[in-house]
This record gives sequence, structure tokens and C-alpha cells, in this order.
Amino acid sequence: MNSIVSLETGGQGLYDITHKVGEVVSEHRMREGLVTVFLRHTSASLLIQENADPSVQADLSTFFAELVPESDSLYTHTAEGADDMPAHIKAALTLTSLSIPVMDGQMALGIWQAIYLWEHRHAPHQRELVISLSAVL
Amino acid sequence: MNSIVSLETGGQGLYDITHKVGEVVSEHRMREGLVTVFLRHTSASLLIQENADPSVQADLSTFFAELVPESDSLYTHTAEGADDMPAHIKAALTLTSLSIPVMDGQMALGIWQAIYLWEHRHAPHQRELVISLSAVL
Amino acid sequence: MNSIVSLETGGQGLYDITHKVGEVVSEHRMREGLVTVFLRHTSASLLIQENADPSVQADLSTFFAELVPESDSLYTHTAEGADDMPAHIKAALTLTSLSIPVMDGQMALGIWQAIYLWEHRHAPHQRELVISLSAVL
Repeated sequence: MNSIVSLETGGQGLYDITHKVGEVVSEHRMREGLVTVFLRHTSASLLIQENADPSVQADLSTFFAELVPESDSLYTHTAEGADDMPAHIKAALTLTSLSIPVMDGQMALGIWQAIYLWEHRHAPHQRELVISLSAVL
Repeated sequence: MNSIVSLETGGQGLYDITHKVGEVVSEHRMREGLVTVFLRHTSASLLIQENADPSVQADLSTFFAELVPESDSLYTHTAEGADDMPAHIKAALTLTSLSIPVMDGQMALGIWQAIYLWEHRHAPHQRELVISLSAVL
Repeated sequence: MNSIVSLETGGQGLYDITHKVGEVVSEHRMREGLVTVFLRHTSASLLIQENADPSVQADLSTFFAELVPESDSLYTHTAEGADDMPAHIKAALTLTSLSIPVMDGQMALGIWQAIYLWEHRHAPHQRELVISLSAVL
């Protein structure tokens, strides 16, 4: 069964969703398998990155803000606000789905890895994830 | 069974393949599961993006064309044309595989999401996708 | 069963791991299915790219080194060396997991496709992959 998980974001930034994904794995008592996370939006995205030092997340945000500036005159899609088209581009540069193996009842993430929902819009948004558990052979 | 789906592109741009993926889901009468799309090429790529306003796709193309210009003197891989190495880089910045949950017999895409094959070459190309259906627990 | 595969990298560059993934598929005698590769690190990444002409890999490395320079004054995460934050950004722009269909006992890669582990740090590193095999319907 696929599980829908909802999340309220509070503006641009990386939101750690590792525990939300882990809860679905635990609830289904999966010992060995694969969990896939899918995001049902195009102006936010998914990412696995370092969870140890918050400066990594800050620098990721700064780099992407410089790479995809909100004031760029190239955008024609401006009706939904100056941050909307940059949000779509940042989402295109990162991920909408990702898969993580489950071993011994735990996601086999590296010691420094966390799963993030990256909100690219300034306004708070309600975001939906779909979490899928698959068997492995 | 994995299904191979072929597609003729007509030069650079985003080609909506949502219905092609959906057809495979329908033919197999999948009610609940996970569909994975894989592209067998390195100068085109996959992307899930907004399907509502065509200006999003236009701006994505413009942004990537500026980020990865065809005239950049840094490229040494030029034997296959000025658009080939930029095509590989654009593919590296986006996706070769992606997974979408299936719920109630439909892909659980967000309301504004479509699946695109992004052709990065100027010339028309024959492109092959492999579509895989997996059960979920 | 998920399989852990270890790999020693020798500094920045793309390391072809196609045969390592293929070995897991062969050992399990998978004829038809899906293989998912997951990387347990955030300063290296995964990528499927052209394996025919080594200049593609060289140009990818040059492009990413220019896009994400080591000397950028925007970084605040500098404690682990000048190449660490750029490594995280390059990893964010590429992949931590990817899936490839298996058909007739072989990964259904395109004729020019190889799977790479992209090491973004200068120093050699021990890297761990988790390889998951799933059935398809």
C-alpha cells in the first residue's frame, strides 16, 4: 500500500523528513526492502544531504539562490510571483522521487545522510509525499 | 515484465510522456504499485514538471540553454556537434530514471505534474524508454 | 536481500561501477526485474552517462568545477576543506539513487550508457553502495 504523508512548510528551506519516512517503514514492520518517496509538487523537491552541520544546508540554499536568481529577466512565467519560476528550476535540478534500501528494519542511510523536502517558495505550503514500500529479492 | 516504449523527438524541447506511461499502467490493470521509467540515452533526460502553463517549459529550456551554452570553449568533446556535450551536461543535471506511485489504478501525480522526456539535441532522435511495474507491500 | 558493495576512490573523477552492479544481478540470476543503486554518502554521487568517449567525462568534470568553484566566498561550511561544500553541491545536482531495469538477465542500459560513482572530494575515500533487486509484474 502506498502511504500519503502531508507536511506544512514555513517558507524556503530544507525540512528533514527522515523520521516521517522511517515511521512508515516501522509501521509496516519492514525488515528488508526498498522505500520510495515521491513528491506531488513541482515547486518543491527532494534531496538526500548531510544532516550533521546546518551550514551545509545554508550554503546549499545560498548557492541555489545565486544560480537561479529571482530577479532574472529571462523568466516569462511570472504570474505566480517572482519566486515561482526559480522554484520550478530548482526542483528540476534536484529530485521528485528517490529510493532508499531498508536493512534490518532501518533505512540504510549513511551516517550523515538525511532525507529533505526542499521548499522553494517563500509562502508556507501544504505538501504531499507518497511513500511506497517494495520487497527485494 | 518491463515494457519498451519508443518515441520520435523533433528537436530540443520537453515531450509529455505521461499518457505513454499511463497506458502501460492501464494495460497491466495495476491498481496499487510503483511505476519506474528509465531512459536509455545520455543526451536526453527525464523530468517531472508543471504541465499547466507552457511558459514553465519555455523558461526551463531558456535557463538550461544559458547555464550550459553551446558555444562554451571549455568543451573538448565536440566531434558529435556543438549541441552534444551541452546535451550530456543537461542530462546529468536532470534524470535518467524516476519512479511514480500508482494508487486506485492511476499514477499518483500531483494535479500539475506531468512526466517529460527532455530532448537536448537539435536533430530529431528515436528514443527508447523502459517502463517497469513493481508491487508495493 | 540488499547487497552492500564497497569501493575505494582515488580522488575526484567518475568511476565506472557498471560491472559491480551487473555482478550482483548475475549472482542472483535475475532474468527480469529492476535494480536500484543507492549511495551512502553526500560528497559523492551517482550518474548514468556516456562511456564511449572519455572526453565526455572530462568535460562533465570541468563544467561542474566551473559551476561550483572551490574558491567561492559564499561558502560558510569550510571546516572540512575547500572541496567539501562544492562536493555536497555537486552531489545535490546529481543523484544519490537510481534504478535500472533488468531484461533477459542483463541491465537494459542503452548502448552508450554506463553507471558512474562520481567522487567529488580530492582525497581517496572508501564509499559504500547498496544494491537492491526488485521483481517486476
